[in-house]
Amino acid sequence: MAGKDGCVLGIDVGGTSIKAGLMTVGGEILDTTKIPTGEIVSDAAYQEITNGLSTLVASAGYTGSDVVALGLDVPGPVDDQGRVGFFANIELDPDGLRSALLEAFPASRLAFVNDANAAALGELWKGSAKGIGSFALVTLGTGVGGGIVIGGKLVSGAFGAGGEIGHITVKPEGEERACGCGRHGCLEQYASAKGLVWLYRQECRRQGVEGVKVEHDTDTLSVFAALKAGDECAETAVIKMCEYLGYALAQLSVIIDPAVFLIGGGVAGAFDAFSNKLAASFRAHCLSTSSAARILPCSLGNKAGMYGAAYAGLQEAGLA
Amino acid sequence: MAGKDGCVLGIDVGGTSIKAGLMTVGGEILDTTKIPTGEIVSDAAYQEITNGLSTLVASAGYTGSDVVALGLDVPGPVDDQGRVGFFANIELDPDGLRSALLEAFPASRLAFVNDANAAALGELWKGSAKGIGSFALVTLGTGVGGGIVIGGKLVSGAFGAGGEIGHITVKPEGEERACGCGRHGCLEQYASAKGLVWLYRQECRRQGVEGVKVEHDTDTLSVFAALKAGDECAETAVIKMCEYLGYALAQLSVIIDPAVFLIGGGVAGAFDAFSNKLAASFRAHCLSTSSAARILPCSLGNKAGMYGAAYAGLQEAGLA
Repeated sequence: MAGKDGCVLGIDVGGTSIKAGLMTVGGEILDTTKIPTGEIVSDAAYQEITNGLSTLVASAGYTGSDVVALGLDVPGPVDDQGRVGFFANIELDPDGLRSALLEAFPASRLAFVNDANAAALGELWKGSAKGIGSFALVTLGTGVGGGIVIGGKLVSGAFGAGGEIGHITVKPEGEERACGCGRHGCLEQYASAKGLVWLYRQECRRQGVEGVKVEHDTDTLSVFAALKAGDECAETAVIKMCEYLGYALAQLSVIIDPAVFLIGGGVAGAFDAFSNKLAASFRAHCLSTSSAARILPCSLGNKAGMYGAAYAGLQEAGLA
Repeated sequence: MAGKDGCVLGIDVGGTSIKAGLMTVGGEILDTTKIPTGEIVSDAAYQEITNGLSTLVASAGYTGSDVVALGLDVPGPVDDQGRVGFFANIELDPDGLRSALLEAFPASRLAFVNDANAAALGELWKGSAKGIGSFALVTLGTGVGGGIVIGGKLVSGAFGAGGEIGHITVKPEGEERACGCGRHGCLEQYASAKGLVWLYRQECRRQGVEGVKVEHDTDTLSVFAALKAGDECAETAVIKMCEYLGYALAQLSVIIDPAVFLIGGGVAGAFDAFSNKLAASFRAHCLSTSSAARILPCSLGNKAGMYGAAYAGLQEAGLA
């Protein structure tokens, strides 16, 4: 039976599909759905999405008018006014989608939020950062993303680049490879899945050994398995990754000085294998006054974005 | 005649004296005073301070009970709970002083705020950052300090290190000199008054020339005068300073992405002489999405701290 407070939708917008969660305003997930998408720029495409969401809402006994808030996390910049910037990897007209959604769910307020920022809000609402007003989240995945929360509010930035932690420069000199952003020596080049695999292969070359078989450019599982088995090159690669990441956390520390750093993303599946090395690196680089900052793993996995998007919608509606 | 809304005190706590401004709650300065101090750890010392402040308050026709808020800016860390940390350069018992002040001004609320953070609040209230909710202020003085404001609120940090912009690492390798914090390659080592003089002397040595006469280790006036006169070593030194400072602003940009950077402190007296070089350096280092961020000079000079301390008191009292 549908609750009287209405419901909220948290929507992950990906490259080929949308994943949506229907929740109570208290954040209990009632049901989820996945809607395949192509380019999201036409009335037909918006209609498919609103139809899929309406079915989800109806399945829990709600009507479209019971949706009080909805949030969409998107793989691109969203600034502090909620304006959506350019997307590198998906075709999406945010204004068209917004209009269609507000027509289908007329009682709702809507928020767009960057995907890594959504993960931070999700962890704040339901995960490792519950009760922690100020923290920085770093997601170590294919790339390195991040989200910063201060006083319970996301720092989106004037141009949507708030929390772009993957683009902190950690090696200002001597990096010949360019980062995806066009700059050189970004954290993402060393602490993403791709970065760690690159560090491993580089160390194998340097030592003139073959190393373990790495399946693909982001196969960190093989690197961490090798680490566990005592592979010296894997040890060096993980130490280097932690050296760069700890250095970046120390830069965050002299700027926003959070009580907690949260580590998420696929690479954080191996958190226990590198957390001590990371903590040591952070403490070697930070101001002594901030050395008690804690480094914790995220706890919501790939549900963080869905929770965070819903929470952003609730904040927009004045309900959180 | 005293206004009916009461008054507010903004108090700069320095090493040898306290400077205080009495203002209306709207921020009009009514009068100022300077009270010489020694160690601020005894009832006698607190008494001298409260006496001096009471005289200031009375001079404008107010009584002690008319003071609705007071703020103290102090040369040391203050965390986001208002807790005061260790002071390197003054002897001050914050709890004792707080008690004495609240006894003398019983209707007031009191806030401690770090000096560079106070300058940021002052510029927000009455200076260059008026109406700009999110910005970073960098003070280039004997050292390099900073203050970050997001959504109209100061980012003090969990351990009081929020906005310690002078300790962003800008040269992670190859700096033999240690910074005052014990680390190496901090922005403060290159963009403070001392840093710029050091860069100038280093460049003179490198080029094997004598250079202009520099009066003391922080005499940037002579360096800027030399720059104006076409001295090549001064040109190189200022370019290097701007290179490091622009790099640091770019790191701030990928973390908090402010709309505006404010430059203050003594060295900023020569803002016009280096602002183009600084803007060019920032744009060379930042993510392209943030390249429209503006770099502006502070406008309150050494009154910024007094305004900001008063404003922090007003925020504490719920009046700002």
